Amino acid sequence: MKNGIVIVGGVAAGMSAAAKAARVNPGIPVTVFTDEEYVSYGACGFPYYLSGEIPDENRLVARTVEQFRDQGVEVKTGHEVIEIKPNQKTVLVRDLKRGALLEQSYDRLVIATGAVPFVPPVEGVELENVFVLRNMKHGIVLKSSIAARNYRKAVIVGGGYIGLEMAETFIKLGCKVSIIELAPQIIPNMDSDMAEIMKDYLLANGVDIFTGEKLTRIEGTGEVKKVVTDKRDIPADCVLLAVGTLPNTNLASRAGIELGVKKAIRVNTRMETSVPGIYAAGDCATVRHRVTKEEAYIPLGTTANKQGRVAGENAAGGNASFEGVVGTGIAKVLDMEIARTGLSRMEIERAGIEHVETVIKSRTAAGYYPGSGYLHLKLSAEKGTGRLLGAQIVGARGSGKRIDVFAACLHLEATVADLQDMDLAYAPPFSPVYDAILVVLADLNKKVKMI
Amino acid sequence: MKNGIVIVGGVAAGMSAAAKAARVNPGIPVTVFTDEEYVSYGACGFPYYLSGEIPDENRLVARTVEQFRDQGVEVKTGHEVIEIKPNQKTVLVRDLKRGALLEQSYDRLVIATGAVPFVPPVEGVELENVFVLRNMKHGIVLKSSIAARNYRKAVIVGGGYIGLEMAETFIKLGCKVSIIELAPQIIPNMDSDMAEIMKDYLLANGVDIFTGEKLTRIEGTGEVKKVVTDKRDIPADCVLLAVGTLPNTNLASRAGIELGVKKAIRVNTRMETSVPGIYAAGDCATVRHRVTKEEAYIPLGTTANKQGRVAGENAAGGNASFEGVVGTGIAKVLDMEIARTGLSRMEIERAGIEHVETVIKSRTAAGYYPGSGYLHLKLSAEKGTGRLLGAQIVGARGSGKRIDVFAACLHLEATVADLQDMDLAYAPPFSPVYDAILVVLADLNKKVKMI
Repeated sequence: MKNGIVIVGGVAAGMSAAAKAARVNPGIPVTVFTDEEYVSYGACGFPYYLSGEIPDENRLVARTVEQFRDQGVEVKTGHEVIEIKPNQKTVLVRDLKRGALLEQSYDRLVIATGAVPFVPPVEGVELENVFVLRNMKHGIVLKSSIAARNYRKAVIVGGGYIGLEMAETFIKLGCKVSIIELAPQIIPNMDSDMAEIMKDYLLANGVDIFTGEKLTRIEGTGEVKKVVTDKRDIPADCVLLAVGTLPNTNLASRAGIELGVKKAIRVNTRMETSVPGIYAAGDCATVRHRVTKEEAYIPLGTTANKQGRVAGENAAGGNASFEGVVGTGIAKVLDMEIARTGLSRMEIERAGIEHVETVIKSRTAAGYYPGSGYLHLKLSAEKGTGRLLGAQIVGARGSGKRIDVFAACLHLEATVADLQDMDLAYAPPFSPVYDAILVVLADLNKKVKMI
Repeated sequence: MKNGIVIVGGVAAGMSAAAKAARVNPGIPVTVFTDEEYVSYGACGFPYYLSGEIPDENRLVARTVEQFRDQGVEVKTGHEVIEIKPNQKTVLVRDLKRGALLEQSYDRLVIATGAVPFVPPVEGVELENVFVLRNMKHGIVLKSSIAARNYRKAVIVGGGYIGLEMAETFIKLGCKVSIIELAPQIIPNMDSDMAEIMKDYLLANGVDIFTGEKLTRIEGTGEVKKVVTDKRDIPADCVLLAVGTLPNTNLASRAGIELGVKKAIRVNTRMETSVPGIYAAGDCATVRHRVTKEEAYIPLGTTANKQGRVAGENAAGGNASFEGVVGTGIAKVLDMEIARTGLSRMEIERAGIEHVETVIKSRTAAGYYPGSGYLHLKLSAEKGTGRLLGAQIVGARGSGKRIDVFAACLHLEATVADLQDMDLAYAPPFSPVYDAILVVLADLNKKVKMI
């Protein structure tokens, strides 16, 4: 492999692939092209960087270009790959600083081009103080804008994880925060009853929430003055568009690489695309869902890292596989945590699975223990078989990570009957004598048996 | 069943049995005899009651005698069962207030007599200000003593969970704390390398720790003045004996009921003893260990509750079973958490299982996230098969409950290979992008494969 491995993209999946490839097969040249200036940064940390809790963007960087070079990875920042030529096994690269074009040969290619924020096609999105948040540049632009101006009225378009995490950020910055969400509920990837609990919490913390409302335009001259929906005008001096992301697959598509669900690059568990020698990983790629056994598109940093490693190992001649995800996610807003794994009710219905579900309210610690908070835990299982399908948590600090128990159980394809009377850790600072997990499992098991 | 169900003992197992029996079969008389005055209290909460964080002992009581009565359970407090007569199906009971004896017939009997603190046979244990901590009376006595005297020098004999939790209590009360432990390490049910981390933390918090030292006597006239070990004298104005508990099985033994390991009452998974119609549950009973598949004695509140329910259900004519524990435990001392599940190294060796193990150091949150703490996670698996054997955690706040993932995996008898690339929840406030659990599993899987 004298031309070595070329990787397109320098964040989670790309740099995981690069580091792994260099480790697995130190003899092969590994070159990363990225149109950005920063590599291997933790984009999930932006809300805490923007709030000022993380003082410096460099804290978000896991490893620098120099550190990668020491590991045998050549990183070309400010280099945009503009074409993949699978027949020639080359990529066409634009050096963004010099404007020059260069052609680089590869033996194996890893596409890790990530995702791009979706910008709704309405008037005013080009105004100053309208932001998106996806890459480091977006983060730095918003941060310097926050530093320069004293924002007081933030409107967040989109009530998903990023919208909610950024609500916390703007609250900490002293803003009045409004969230607009097109869907009838916030956190559309959770069930409405669970989302409602978080909504009440946000309302109690002074956030205005407008669900089932459509952004129609953003008004202002140069700077934003207000956000207009199909139902109202909301005064604003700062707007964050957080309505979702699209896999960044134009480059792959033009090269004839097959796309899958949501137009993400279709990969198998070895991270191989439809073109031999070309791998894809991370937010530009599909992932296998271990519960539905189907192809899915769930762009998350933790999956990007895992897929990147496998792509890198296999590109370097190894034999790794990534068998997929169970659909786990977590976020916090101030002192409230939300988490999910498996399938939501909507996903269960879409998959055509008959199911039973239950919700319980419990505590994060023994009721008598100081600071014990409430948590709501919802669980679903397949009717008849009792196969675990999904879990959702909304609750006080210390509740969210309980989702990992269910993620493990979904990974192992357990039924609710398998999971009765688990020996979970108990001491008053950690849970009631019956942890919420045991309570919800016992409750759901009864329902499964009754049917 | 006209004589109904008689239950001996009114705390976790006893009252769980009573409540369950009354729910399952409301027609049957259910009578509980307890020599105590309080029932269904959370003994695990004592350290926080004694520190003053829980203001009142009544907060520890889950349900009162009156509430039980409303559920159809007759509770006789201050009534000590002094003999079980299996042939007559009666118990002989002493009314402690009146001194009267009465004989009560039963159709089914549940023994839930709990455990008693072991008092080392040395001079001076009878002095004032020498305490044990097991039941509510012990708690109230110690609490009122703390309120009356301004203890400044507390010596805790025993470095297990209760000893450590009480170290926190005495620190909060402003005491200089010393811990004496006969074993070469504190927390003898964890591995020495893990215990060492907690020891360092305690030392850094001003606790003196003397391991491998034997209590030889306690000196003083009326009140304690000092504690003497085989190596030193330690000034003390308060001593807590926390060297372990013994199953309270004298009553059962005298009735000819078979005892098992550690002289606990031998029960099967239906909580049946060797005598038909007599059940046992909780800290007086054995439990099946799901990892070794053998009988064990692990007295813990959460198990007592589960066993109590099963005993109560079966005594009332039901058909329940409790398949056992995996050996999970958790505790915290100030801001440090310890947790374990499965088998410790010593238990693995005792079981004669060849094993591999690994320890990793990771974080409770992303490294850049404010307040991210360290955690140490140790994992063991069977050589060859990779069957998961045990996990141990010592770390900062938010680390301990991760043990539940391993408790679930042990419950499901997973191998480390089964558990690679689990989709655990990631966001910067909750974990690094690779949760410690994934890191330790990947590391151990490599070791399993190498052999």
